[in-house]
Amino acid sequence: MASPPKHLSGDPTAINEFIDKFDIFLLDCDGVLWSGDHLFPGTVEILEYLRSRGKKVVFVTNNSTKSRADYQKKLTSMGIPSNIEEIFASAYSSAIYISRILKVPPPKNKVFVIGEIGIETELKTEGIEFIGGTDPAYRRDITPEDYKGIADGSLLDDNVGIVLAGLDFHITYLKYAHAYHYLARGAKFLATNTDSTLPANHTFFPGAGSISIPLINMTGQQPTALGKPSQAMMDSIEGKFQFDRKKACMVGDRLDTDIRFGIEGKLGGTLAVLTGVAKKEEWEAEGAPVVPAYYVEKLSDLKG
Amino acid sequence: MASPPKHLSGDPTAINEFIDKFDIFLLDCDGVLWSGDHLFPGTVEILEYLRSRGKKVVFVTNNSTKSRADYQKKLTSMGIPSNIEEIFASAYSSAIYISRILKVPPPKNKVFVIGEIGIETELKTEGIEFIGGTDPAYRRDITPEDYKGIADGSLLDDNVGIVLAGLDFHITYLKYAHAYHYLARGAKFLATNTDSTLPANHTFFPGAGSISIPLINMTGQQPTALGKPSQAMMDSIEGKFQFDRKKACMVGDRLDTDIRFGIEGKLGGTLAVLTGVAKKEEWEAEGAPVVPAYYVEKLSDLKG
Repeated sequence: MASPPKHLSGDPTAINEFIDKFDIFLLDCDGVLWSGDHLFPGTVEILEYLRSRGKKVVFVTNNSTKSRADYQKKLTSMGIPSNIEEIFASAYSSAIYISRILKVPPPKNKVFVIGEIGIETELKTEGIEFIGGTDPAYRRDITPEDYKGIADGSLLDDNVGIVLAGLDFHITYLKYAHAYHYLARGAKFLATNTDSTLPANHTFFPGAGSISIPLINMTGQQPTALGKPSQAMMDSIEGKFQFDRKKACMVGDRLDTDIRFGIEGKLGGTLAVLTGVAKKEEWEAEGAPVVPAYYVEKLSDLKG
Repeated sequence: MASPPKHLSGDPTAINEFIDKFDIFLLDCDGVLWSGDHLFPGTVEILEYLRSRGKKVVFVTNNSTKSRADYQKKLTSMGIPSNIEEIFASAYSSAIYISRILKVPPPKNKVFVIGEIGIETELKTEGIEFIGGTDPAYRRDITPEDYKGIADGSLLDDNVGIVLAGLDFHITYLKYAHAYHYLARGAKFLATNTDSTLPANHTFFPGAGSISIPLINMTGQQPTALGKPSQAMMDSIEGKFQFDRKKACMVGDRLDTDIRFGIEGKLGGTLAVLTGVAKKEEWEAEGAPVVPAYYVEKLSDLKG
C-alpha cells in the first residue's frame, strides 16, 4: 500500500524542501489555477514565486476545446505570463500523435472530428485534413436523407480513416451517427482525453470522456486517449523539454488523470490540490488506487 | 451450458409443433417486423397467419420515441392490423412505472426528460409533470448564463425528482448538463431502455442506451431501465394479459434484450430472428451467455 501523502500547507520547512527537490513543475490548469473563468486567488503570485526560484513551469491540460494559442490567450488574459512552448493541451497532443506517430498513409488519413475549434487549429498546424468539428453541416437535426446516405455510405467520406473525439459543446445525434459509421468501417478511434466531467463555475459539467462514451458503447471499442494519464502525452513533454523525470513534479486536482499521469510517468513527485475534483477521502480510503506523494489545500499554499 | 437453439426455417413439422406450443407471442418490432421504415416481406401475412391459428400477438418495443398511439399509426400505415392495448413500448412502460410503482410524493415528483414526444405523450396520459424533452429551450447551445444558473441552481427546477432518459434525436450538451445536475442533487435515474444501437436503414444508429451512458459515466449511477430485458416490463405485460408464461414465446432480434427478456421472464419459449442485430455466431460461441430456444432466418419462415 502507498504511504499517505505529505501535507505541505502551513509547513514552510516542508514546502521549501519540496520545491528544492524539483526543476520542473507540470501543472494541470482547470481545478488547479482556476475553475472555469474564476482565477484562484494567489495563482499569479505562486507561479511567479516558482519561476523566481528558477523552476520551469509547463501547463498541461486535458481541455481539448482550446489550441495552445487559445490557452496562452487565456493565461495572458488572467495575467499569467507564459510562452506557447510551455503549453501542452490534449488537442495539440492529439494532432502530434496523428501526424508523427500514427502516420496513416494517404489518402485514407482524413480525420472525422467531434470537438471544438481548438482541435481543428492544432490539426491544421500539423497539416492534417479533417471534416466534422465545428462545421455547421453537422450541427443540426438528423434527417431521413441522412439516415439513408449514412447507411448506404453516399454521405460518408471514403478518405476518413480516423475518428478523433474531444469535448464538443455542440454534440448532435448526427455527429454520433457519422462517427459510429466511420468506426464501423474501420477508422482508428482516438480520444483527446477521457475525463468524465469538466470543472466549471465551482461545479462540474460533462467532460470529453462523457461525450465520447456513446461511441465506445456502440462499437465496443476503446479509443486511444491522448490526454493525461496517457503516457503518450508524457513522452511528448519529455521529448520537448529533455528533463530528468526524477526532478519533475506533476501537480493536479484529479487522482485518476493528473496524479496517475505523474506516477505512471515515474516522475520524482506528485502534488494534489483540493481546489478541484479530488477529495482527501479518496486517497485516505482503504486500498485507494492512486495516492499522491504530497498535497496542499490550494496551490498558493506553496508560497509558504 | 444451454442446448443449441432449434432451427425452424424450412421444417414445416417443427414449425407446426412450435406454434402449437404457445398461446401468445410477444413480438419485438424493429429488426423483426421491419427495419426503420422498411417492412420485411411477409410480415403482414405471418401475423395474419398466427392470428388465424388463434394466437394472441403483443408488440413489445424498446423504442421510446413513440407513444403507443404513434406505434399503432406506424403499424396501421404498414398495413398491420393492431389494437392499442396490444402495444407495449418503453415510453409507456416508463410512465406506468413512475405513476404506479415509483410514486415519488409531490411536489418533488417532476420528471426531467431526455427524449422525444412519445415519452411526453405517455407521461401526460399518466398525469405526470415533466420538463425538458422536446422543449426548444433545451435544444440549443449552452451559454455562460446556463453554466452560471445551473451551477448556482437558479436555472434548475427544485421539483424535479426524476430524470428519465430515452432516445433523443435532439440531444444537446445543455440537456446533459441539466440532467447531470438533477442527478447530482439526488433525482432518481430512470432509462426507458438501454439498447446501445437502433436498427434503421439495414444498419445501426445510436440507441437510447448510448444517449443515456454519458450520465452513467458522469454520476457513476446506473439507471433503473424500464424496457427489455427489465422484468418490470414483463410484469406489466403479464398483469394486463393474464397469460400463462409457459404458453408464451418472446420473439426478437437481440439476444441481450429480447431473448434475455424471455428467458429471465421464464417464458415457455424464445425465438430469435436473424433480420436484426443477432448473428448465429453469438449463440454458437463457447460459453454464450444468452441462447434462444428456437431460431429462424426471418419471421416469415414461420409461415412454413
